[in-house]
Amino acid sequence: MHTVDTIEALRRQIQTWRRRQETVGFVPTMGNLHAGHLALVSDAQARADRVVVSIFVNPMQFGPGEDLDSYPRTLRDDQARLLDAGVDLLFAPRVETVYPRGEAHTSAVIVPDGLTDILCGASRPGHFRGVATVVAKLFNMVQPDLAVFGEKDLQQLRVIQRMAEDLDLPVRVHGSPTMREADGLATSSRNQYLSEAERRRAPILHQTLQQVAEIVSRDRGAIETALHEGRQALEKAGFQVDYLEVRDWESLGPPGQGPLVVLGAAWLGQARLIDNLGI
Amino acid sequence: MHTVDTIEALRRQIQTWRRRQETVGFVPTMGNLHAGHLALVSDAQARADRVVVSIFVNPMQFGPGEDLDSYPRTLRDDQARLLDAGVDLLFAPRVETVYPRGEAHTSAVIVPDGLTDILCGASRPGHFRGVATVVAKLFNMVQPDLAVFGEKDLQQLRVIQRMAEDLDLPVRVHGSPTMREADGLATSSRNQYLSEAERRRAPILHQTLQQVAEIVSRDRGAIETALHEGRQALEKAGFQVDYLEVRDWESLGPPGQGPLVVLGAAWLGQARLIDNLGI
Repeated sequence: MHTVDTIEALRRQIQTWRRRQETVGFVPTMGNLHAGHLALVSDAQARADRVVVSIFVNPMQFGPGEDLDSYPRTLRDDQARLLDAGVDLLFAPRVETVYPRGEAHTSAVIVPDGLTDILCGASRPGHFRGVATVVAKLFNMVQPDLAVFGEKDLQQLRVIQRMAEDLDLPVRVHGSPTMREADGLATSSRNQYLSEAERRRAPILHQTLQQVAEIVSRDRGAIETALHEGRQALEKAGFQVDYLEVRDWESLGPPGQGPLVVLGAAWLGQARLIDNLGI
Repeated sequence: MHTVDTIEALRRQIQTWRRRQETVGFVPTMGNLHAGHLALVSDAQARADRVVVSIFVNPMQFGPGEDLDSYPRTLRDDQARLLDAGVDLLFAPRVETVYPRGEAHTSAVIVPDGLTDILCGASRPGHFRGVATVVAKLFNMVQPDLAVFGEKDLQQLRVIQRMAEDLDLPVRVHGSPTMREADGLATSSRNQYLSEAERRRAPILHQTLQQVAEIVSRDRGAIETALHEGRQALEKAGFQVDYLEVRDWESLGPPGQGPLVVLGAAWLGQARLIDNLGI
């Protein structure tokens, strides 16, 4: 597996595959790879002849006071894991390569209809503008046939699907099911911000989503009660709740007649954990 | 020459050329084609094996009260001209194909640093957001190697070059020199809004740019005087001046040490004419 850090080297390698009519799958990441990322890689490998992974901690999607500087950067370990996983190419660009003028001086992609303002977007203004913009850029750098994102970040997945559809990007965007630890906690790079005691309590987020999902699957009229109880359970367990909501699974808008999802985001110590569960 | 109106048919045709390693040049237009457009086609033909022209009157770049409804639509004549010119494919999509959710509900591309707020952007708010967005979409539909735009719309060219660069679109964006009538008037679809009497006075815009360019090329200190005299000359000839400015040729920012350009926009009757001249 080669690691490249320039767009020219990236495109040169991909061009050789294109000439052989090979299809290209793409898994964009911020690195610090865990089993969840490797499941995305495996999903991409099942769908394409070649798989490119990118590692880029994107400054444009971090707000002031967020964990941009402390976000774990573990390139050597990540390379070893991707090599083991049979990835064909790792693209790990420098910030100057992605934002030669600085991220504040880069054309941005704005996704409409409030999709970026709700849920995580409400407490992280500008976050999804940064996500949509960097993913548009990465798609244009790699030009894959398909890309795979985790359903753990469901809002991110929906923002990217909408962006790709609206801008007619010739990339199929797949969601891949959330990978979990044995106790149900969704795998995440931010789990390592948890103390041992917090780590033991962390699965309560997933358990709470399960409880809400169970109640709502029996009675859609009980959504508000279920969410109220869920928020109380999380607060009692020491979480500071950012949101706990039931939404339409596709649009993330208010619950209608279609499939639903319960989404939660909550702080536990230094970690902001998010998770969701289809109902 | 085939005319297609769906993205699927467009991509299918282009795919057959790609398989033969042929390069693709692209000339996006709003139709009502004149000699200026045909010069862009000819430029594209010199640079690529195949040339695709699009005709799409983009509602997203027209403001309220602008000439969206009255903009001349002449598809039959345009087809005949493009066939004569040896164009390989015409893409003439319907509004619903480009904006299936409506243009207000489409992800948009925002070009930064005030480039879209100055000059034409000052009197046409939202115009360049519409231009950048539709061109990003068209680039993703066609996926050309290169695209050609006229230097007559210099700010549009710079916005598109910046957008393509910032979003890492794999498309080279070329500017092609302005085509003029015998009397110096820049060719434009909007020239047909002029009455006969206005048409006779219209070349005064180009003449005024020439006078400003001549003065400034001799003495960069005389920019303000030259512009003041130029505005007076235009008003005396019955123009209502929107702007007359000297800018940096590349950045369109304030004049510095590099090459300069004088740009003007003015109403003459029902027609808003724009033009520019390198100094």
